[in-house]
Amino acid sequence: MRSYLDDFTRREWQHESPAGTVRLAVVGLGEFARDQALPGIEDSEFCNTTTLVTGSSDKGKRIADKRDIDHVLSYDAFHDGEAADDYDAVYVATPTGQHLQYVETAAELGKDVITEKPMEKSVERAERLREVCEAAEITLMVAYRPRMEPVFQRARELVHDDGVVGEVTEIHAQFAFDVLDIGGPDQWRIDRDLAGGGALMDAGVYTATIARFFADSNPASVQGETVAEHEAFDEDVEERAAYTVQFENGVTASCSTSFNSARNDWVEIIGTEGTLRIEPAFWFNVDRDLSIERDDWEATVTGPSVDEVREEFDHFGYAVLTDTDPEPNAAVGIGDLKLLEGVYESANTGERVQFN
Amino acid sequence: MRSYLDDFTRREWQHESPAGTVRLAVVGLGEFARDQALPGIEDSEFCNTTTLVTGSSDKGKRIADKRDIDHVLSYDAFHDGEAADDYDAVYVATPTGQHLQYVETAAELGKDVITEKPMEKSVERAERLREVCEAAEITLMVAYRPRMEPVFQRARELVHDDGVVGEVTEIHAQFAFDVLDIGGPDQWRIDRDLAGGGALMDAGVYTATIARFFADSNPASVQGETVAEHEAFDEDVEERAAYTVQFENGVTASCSTSFNSARNDWVEIIGTEGTLRIEPAFWFNVDRDLSIERDDWEATVTGPSVDEVREEFDHFGYAVLTDTDPEPNAAVGIGDLKLLEGVYESANTGERVQFN
Repeated sequence: MRSYLDDFTRREWQHESPAGTVRLAVVGLGEFARDQALPGIEDSEFCNTTTLVTGSSDKGKRIADKRDIDHVLSYDAFHDGEAADDYDAVYVATPTGQHLQYVETAAELGKDVITEKPMEKSVERAERLREVCEAAEITLMVAYRPRMEPVFQRARELVHDDGVVGEVTEIHAQFAFDVLDIGGPDQWRIDRDLAGGGALMDAGVYTATIARFFADSNPASVQGETVAEHEAFDEDVEERAAYTVQFENGVTASCSTSFNSARNDWVEIIGTEGTLRIEPAFWFNVDRDLSIERDDWEATVTGPSVDEVREEFDHFGYAVLTDTDPEPNAAVGIGDLKLLEGVYESANTGERVQFN
Repeated sequence: MRSYLDDFTRREWQHESPAGTVRLAVVGLGEFARDQALPGIEDSEFCNTTTLVTGSSDKGKRIADKRDIDHVLSYDAFHDGEAADDYDAVYVATPTGQHLQYVETAAELGKDVITEKPMEKSVERAERLREVCEAAEITLMVAYRPRMEPVFQRARELVHDDGVVGEVTEIHAQFAFDVLDIGGPDQWRIDRDLAGGGALMDAGVYTATIARFFADSNPASVQGETVAEHEAFDEDVEERAAYTVQFENGVTASCSTSFNSARNDWVEIIGTEGTLRIEPAFWFNVDRDLSIERDDWEATVTGPSVDEVREEFDHFGYAVLTDTDPEPNAAVGIGDLKLLEGVYESANTGERVQFN
């Protein structure tokens, strides 16, 4: 155990120290991009921001001044390739259902891409997004913060390599918060056309990707429920969802997610020999407890808090600079979306959805 | 909050102090009956044991001597009404699928009944059990320990009366242990004919009853999965199960249960204003943490450990002595079995099972 805790924030994925940095165009300046991504990039070793792309030039200029960023482009100027010599890669932080169009332009310009989760608003569009990147032979990473967090990296080593819980049997994961309190009733996260759904797409995607991360197997089937009770939600944009995944190796995952609950985010991995829990799991910029309980001992480690956004951009920058594949790639992003679409299908039909 | 914590172990259900005790015949002397129920009854205020009913007269005599119990009967002698003047009520602690026959005899003899959970091995047999008791006009209680535990009593008051988590939105519950380590491969708990199933019937019934306890609503539908991987289990006797309940009031419950995991038992109630967690929840004779987390405060109370078996028998004895209805009654027991049968049906058909 000690070996997993010493040097807690080490990067198993980093095998060398490449020179240089990847210059980014940040597309979309919503709250997360402004308050989390731009500072994270600023602190990162392998990335920096040279270009902002936004529909609001005033906002763009204010942020560019504050952060000493060279260019502010409109979306049209970005599509026209303006200032393209001054960035190497594109971070797509627009509403989910608009990722594809910016990735298409990035690919045309030969720029590597890191795109927010979910990868797109449907499996179909995510697959087009992957094809566009493959055809252009550019790097594509999906921005899953938790997968880059040291707590999750250490937890996966403990579970997969060290067998700390024995054979994994069951997983529970939960991610809930009050979306209306954060962004009000007019935000894109509860606009089906922009987001592809409601709580399941925006928050549930974390539970899906982390269940897969710890199950270490492909989903065999899923059953799901969606709920819409508050007036801000309807059958197109679910307020909450709950679903059960059966993985090919027999692990089950019980997940739920809500846009109308107190903040509550955790994952628990249960096995033949013990239990591992991470809480909080999915919110950003918080200390996370990693707790392990076995018959004969229990331990809680509150890992050194790291900026997982910085880690994520460093992982992307490293992949680009070393020409290696980032870990949360298109296969991860599309796999998660297939699972989420399975939940919607099961919720609609009342039937278990089998994969393959 | 203070008012819920002072006098933590108070009994909201007890409004008077009836005189006398209910004399019990304990039917079945398995490990739980021997090591938990008999001492609990001995410590209880309103019950005492006068009669043991067992297939092993040697074992019965040894226990009767140790605990100063008057009669040891064979099952046949019990059915013949031997020594029936010396007990007032019957505690049925046999394998699940044998409850009905002993309740039938108890009813013929006019004795009140407390029967272990699940009530019987099928809804059909549980309904016959209820009818038998109703026709004989005897008290019937189902022995759900957690519902009688002060931690759960206080938690329900906090959730339902005090709104400590706001409106309940989601519930997660888990109960797992290693049944083979406890009782080996030949025990009745993994014999479908005796138990009606595997992990779901024996351990999952706790998650079902507690989800209903906190949802405070009837199940509208359920989706479920069963898993059998270890050689001791098969499709008739599931090793594990995971299921999602949608309640009529919109609450969802994500539950899982296992006969082949480390001991792991907890329940988490998530709402619009906060989260409440009880852990351990379902194992007996342990200290339980009741934790509440809200935006502005969090608290953990480790309630005074009580013998919930004693509480359960006192609740039953009180109901008999005062001629009132015990809280975990036939409606609770049959409701839980309907939910579990729904999980089996959904697991078999791959379809959501709707109730009514």
